[in-house]
Amino acid sequence: MATLPVSPLARTMPDLPALAGVRFGAAAAGIRYTGRTDLVMAEFVPGTTVAGVFTRSKCPGAPVDWCRAALPEGLARALVVNAGNANVFTGRAGFEATQANAADAARLVGCPASHVFLASTGVIGEILPYKKISTALPGLYATLSETGWADAARGIMTTDTFPKAAVRETTIGDTPVRIQGIAKGSGMVAPDMATMLCFIATDAALPPSVLQPLLSAGTARSFNRTTVDSDTSTSDMVLLFATGQAGNAPVQSESDPALSAFAEALDSLLLELALLVVRDGEGATKLIRIQVTGAASDESAQRVSMAVANSPLVKTAIAGQDANWGRIVMAVGKSGEPANRDTLSIGIGGVWIARNGTVVAGYDETPVVAHMKGQEIDIDIDLGLGNGTGTAWSCDLTHGYIDINGSYRS
Amino acid sequence: MATLPVSPLARTMPDLPALAGVRFGAAAAGIRYTGRTDLVMAEFVPGTTVAGVFTRSKCPGAPVDWCRAALPEGLARALVVNAGNANVFTGRAGFEATQANAADAARLVGCPASHVFLASTGVIGEILPYKKISTALPGLYATLSETGWADAARGIMTTDTFPKAAVRETTIGDTPVRIQGIAKGSGMVAPDMATMLCFIATDAALPPSVLQPLLSAGTARSFNRTTVDSDTSTSDMVLLFATGQAGNAPVQSESDPALSAFAEALDSLLLELALLVVRDGEGATKLIRIQVTGAASDESAQRVSMAVANSPLVKTAIAGQDANWGRIVMAVGKSGEPANRDTLSIGIGGVWIARNGTVVAGYDETPVVAHMKGQEIDIDIDLGLGNGTGTAWSCDLTHGYIDINGSYRS
Repeated sequence: MATLPVSPLARTMPDLPALAGVRFGAAAAGIRYTGRTDLVMAEFVPGTTVAGVFTRSKCPGAPVDWCRAALPEGLARALVVNAGNANVFTGRAGFEATQANAADAARLVGCPASHVFLASTGVIGEILPYKKISTALPGLYATLSETGWADAARGIMTTDTFPKAAVRETTIGDTPVRIQGIAKGSGMVAPDMATMLCFIATDAALPPSVLQPLLSAGTARSFNRTTVDSDTSTSDMVLLFATGQAGNAPVQSESDPALSAFAEALDSLLLELALLVVRDGEGATKLIRIQVTGAASDESAQRVSMAVANSPLVKTAIAGQDANWGRIVMAVGKSGEPANRDTLSIGIGGVWIARNGTVVAGYDETPVVAHMKGQEIDIDIDLGLGNGTGTAWSCDLTHGYIDINGSYRS
Repeated sequence: MATLPVSPLARTMPDLPALAGVRFGAAAAGIRYTGRTDLVMAEFVPGTTVAGVFTRSKCPGAPVDWCRAALPEGLARALVVNAGNANVFTGRAGFEATQANAADAARLVGCPASHVFLASTGVIGEILPYKKISTALPGLYATLSETGWADAARGIMTTDTFPKAAVRETTIGDTPVRIQGIAKGSGMVAPDMATMLCFIATDAALPPSVLQPLLSAGTARSFNRTTVDSDTSTSDMVLLFATGQAGNAPVQSESDPALSAFAEALDSLLLELALLVVRDGEGATKLIRIQVTGAASDESAQRVSMAVANSPLVKTAIAGQDANWGRIVMAVGKSGEPANRDTLSIGIGGVWIARNGTVVAGYDETPVVAHMKGQEIDIDIDLGLGNGTGTAWSCDLTHGYIDINGSYRS
């Protein structure tokens, strides 16, 4: 397909310094694309622990199956990711491809195959030419470097228009630690656990039993609150690797107070990466935040916010810079959640437009019209029922989405 | 907004002959549009029974509230419908508008206000200028005619590009009866009970206790299986009026064998009207039918078919004439319903592309590519789990949808 223009909502990638215990690299294996890298590898020092969250799709890709099976051991020595072919719905051939490529990487780093993590992203249903990966891996392995992060962020892109990464510096107890992650994703984004592909590493020393609940909770508050097009990928995956090189004191529980700054930094990094994916939503020109208050429960508020976030009519109105709050009412109404028309209030850009079931007397659209022209659109919904709150992030629905998805395979 | 080109999937409206006991008419009340009719009225002979199904939206419009309250009596003498303003989220003013217009119509036909049914469609959140309707109704009433059906079908349109109607001739026992209906709808179509507005009349003599279950069952098999954009309207309504003028023998139960031909004809008419709405889906160029077999239950099959019908990625691929069956796999996977990747089969245009979790050996895309160029796209999904079946109808997602919905209010 033609090269896409960079999203107007793009962010410049931060500097990605070395993180002790991780070496990254990228190579062009010719899996689907020409003239670009499409194969990424990472090596982790012995003792690196790992946590993961995966798509809830009933038709997950073979690499998701592989990682799920490998995760219980909680140890990682390598990561291999390819772009251009998702290795999904490829039956026995898909399974064999994961076995072969995991064995390839295990031989190179000298570890059991179950310490190798795999991810694939791209077209569904085509057999992965895994021998191209087997052929390219030894050369790629020889180039792995502590400064290979940016190359990796670029090598995992598919319809992404910019590479995505985030960095946090924090502490565990008194020990400085860093968390650093890359992500890809642009369409087929309605994460139901994780979104597309996201790989994070920290030099903290944390056992899998601590890492996993931190990652699961952070993902629930970030990736799982975002949507581009309501379509959940078969390949969603967030992996978090902890190399232990920072030398912090041992931590045995995710509720240890020594972890509070780390947990906050991880949450914030996950949200930054998730929003980078929404900023690169196919065809997106606006980033939309939907904040729901006054719901019967937090879960209910979250479902209302996602119903608005996924409404094509809300998304097209925002693309057209139209403060069409009636469509927000519609989306609240269709969510199926407890709502009472006569206690419902709607605001845009900090201005309450409708209160308690009807438009505010003397509503002046001027500041709202100005807000709609910006790149970041804030929608507030108060259900007037209880104390439940929730937030979702989405993007607008434009001609660009149709252009990209009417011709993706051609 | 600019006049839209007629949908390429449009159907010519059938002749709508007189139906004994019903008089229809349309007038230009200047509610929103200029140079066209926007107010429709019908009068029914005394004794006419009525059944109705309504949106499950938690934020229904004031006319939906009105009709729900009027329905239990089961008797109808008049119907008043306006286009251009939905009278939704208009608080006390919306309630007062329904009271005033129902009283207006009741005075004209000489009946209790509770025998008047009301519907409104158009923009949400703006106060309905109901006095324009009060002013226009007497003149409109004077023009009602047994041949006013086609004018009515045109008068209720909003973003519709063609008027929609269907006719069936059938029998109850040996008595010939006719069923005739009009509908409108194009966007905000994901009926969760009924879609947008649909009004049907029959000259059959049937008590409300028989009419209602027939309508509810037929709607579940037709309108509730269709979607344009996954957005459920606040104004959805299907009303069925029975004038009793055909003089058939009394029927006391919906399961009376004398009703079987009538029930079949009603179902078929409801489906025809529902598909006319999908054919006029905003921006649609293809009508899509998704047939699911082998599901754990019929309910599960229906949810899988709707997940595919609502997937933007499936809909944009079809707009691009791309037989991207991997996206169908994705949509099955995200439905949340029981599915097993390794027993899943996908077909398009009668050709099975993938069987039991992988592409069919020697799959030749040629006939599928030819099918994708047509206007009617058939998707078959076999889950390989049980005997549940379901069907959904949708349309493709094109630039036309974005054009229409990025500027609806402007």
